[in-house]
Amino acid sequence: MESVNIKQLASLLNLSIATVSKALRDSYDISKGTKEKVIALANELNYQPNPHASSLRKHKSKTIAVIIPEIANNYFTLAINGIETVAQEKGYHVLIYLTHEDYKKEVSLAKELYNGRVDGVLISVSGTTTDCTHLHNLQKKGLPIVFFDRVSEEFDTVKVTTDDYESSYLATRHLVEQGCKKITHLAISKSLSIGNKRLQGYRKAIADFQLPDSESLIVECTNNDEKDVALIRDMFIREKPDGIFAAVERYAMAGYEVCRQLDLNIPKDVKVISFSNLPIASFLNPSLTTITQPAFNIGHEAAARLLTTLEKKNVPLTNESIVFKSSLIQRASTSK
Amino acid sequence: MESVNIKQLASLLNLSIATVSKALRDSYDISKGTKEKVIALANELNYQPNPHASSLRKHKSKTIAVIIPEIANNYFTLAINGIETVAQEKGYHVLIYLTHEDYKKEVSLAKELYNGRVDGVLISVSGTTTDCTHLHNLQKKGLPIVFFDRVSEEFDTVKVTTDDYESSYLATRHLVEQGCKKITHLAISKSLSIGNKRLQGYRKAIADFQLPDSESLIVECTNNDEKDVALIRDMFIREKPDGIFAAVERYAMAGYEVCRQLDLNIPKDVKVISFSNLPIASFLNPSLTTITQPAFNIGHEAAARLLTTLEKKNVPLTNESIVFKSSLIQRASTSK
Repeated sequence: MESVNIKQLASLLNLSIATVSKALRDSYDISKGTKEKVIALANELNYQPNPHASSLRKHKSKTIAVIIPEIANNYFTLAINGIETVAQEKGYHVLIYLTHEDYKKEVSLAKELYNGRVDGVLISVSGTTTDCTHLHNLQKKGLPIVFFDRVSEEFDTVKVTTDDYESSYLATRHLVEQGCKKITHLAISKSLSIGNKRLQGYRKAIADFQLPDSESLIVECTNNDEKDVALIRDMFIREKPDGIFAAVERYAMAGYEVCRQLDLNIPKDVKVISFSNLPIASFLNPSLTTITQPAFNIGHEAAARLLTTLEKKNVPLTNESIVFKSSLIQRASTSK
Repeated sequence: MESVNIKQLASLLNLSIATVSKALRDSYDISKGTKEKVIALANELNYQPNPHASSLRKHKSKTIAVIIPEIANNYFTLAINGIETVAQEKGYHVLIYLTHEDYKKEVSLAKELYNGRVDGVLISVSGTTTDCTHLHNLQKKGLPIVFFDRVSEEFDTVKVTTDDYESSYLATRHLVEQGCKKITHLAISKSLSIGNKRLQGYRKAIADFQLPDSESLIVECTNNDEKDVALIRDMFIREKPDGIFAAVERYAMAGYEVCRQLDLNIPKDVKVISFSNLPIASFLNPSLTTITQPAFNIGHEAAARLLTTLEKKNVPLTNESIVFKSSLIQRASTSK
């Protein structure tokens, strides 16, 4: 169906463009009768305002940006589904930006948002981000920011995460209970708050159960599968661990690959547990014991908080950490 | 870093806003000296044009929409990475829209794009879409559309796909060669071009090798895992097939689940092959034989074609089908 523009509408009604525009915006300048006439014809002819012009007028783009490190990760695909659900309900567009774990890309993407392209930002920061000036600049421009999963503690805003420290402690303890004596941690960047919390949870359990605690049992993985396999393989040959606690499912799969290369049986020789939202964890060989985060709910909550602030100017973002609980699901990869 | 707006820039230079605006647009109205003075100060003070105002002027949003049925699918996550790569190179934003396989949602999303929010559209149509009026309307509005993977043959534009018919024939033949006598096809919607091609490839092989050909061996799956498992289970109990050819990896996983429930061994009792871009197919129990599509390349090519048209007004989209080749990777799920 073709639609008309405001000029055609004005000409058909024999009114000025300004009058039609005011009538459509329900201005008190315009009589009730004129308004009704304008709106009736606008509906009949499928008039739709130009979104850019209307953004300029209202200073609203009805768009939010979601900045995430990667998309080939079940946690983020589920979180995006949660965000999308809220956005569609409230009539917002979602712009998805991928940083590919690259700090420079994150900075350049943030700069593109300086000038009103979006009304607000949901972000999970990249693993190489240590300086958050680019995000402070967004806040200074008046853009509300909500963090989820990978948060920056230096911001006074809503941060939605899971109980990373507690879950990591429980994951490590689970390996100890299943008989592991030397546990390696496949870690994400320590500069990330979640990286640090997962490492600390592991460390605390290692200390409580008096297991070997050594820097050389901690492998800080990258964003490159081949590199990660090489790093983990080197560590295995050097340290001969009997348990793997992986901070991200992709690292667990790199661990499976190393065990295959070194002919180590999971779970007989090595037990594996991982943070993961893989829907088919139970079909892996062996099925993978996971700490599963409520990723959809996390995305949903982060988006709901941001959109409430955008819709209601008197509901600013509070400095608040919202923590969801993860679940440990035991499968064959940690069997005795 | 704070940036100035055009009004502040004009006031600091003691020039009119119109003059500054023209100087920044390199207008022939303005002297070289004035232009240099304006640009130097704009750079120094980090002046950035308002994107909405600049969109209105140039009628360009520098944004493309990607409409896909779902995101929790390795094919689409890889394709998006391919699209993203091209978009970032050319300085375009990517708006990702999910239809969740829902025709009505696809129509309502398309309507939101009628008025210049994006410059072009990449789409993989939903499984429930049979009428493409909403997409014809986008074209009438002058928006270039490129289809990828799930294309609509009724459009004269670029369509990027894989050799679905040939791959499906080869997949079915592979099951026959491995000893299967009764092969089921877990199909996507026949209203989709790829659904139809995959079904036809399967049918041709079934006919060539004189295997049982029956409607009741074809299960048209949905977008709901639980429903699919129930449908496949009913068919297994009724037909007792010894081979599964799945059109989408999610259906293969539903097949694995049904075999587990019915205590059927893969590959001894039932052999399984599937279209799939699952990076960990080799870690499944048993590892999954796949037809793997070059999803990243498909997204890359579709985006490259669209952006070339957007950048160069004299390079319109031709009516062309670009077909990439898939590879059959044999693993344990089809062992003899």
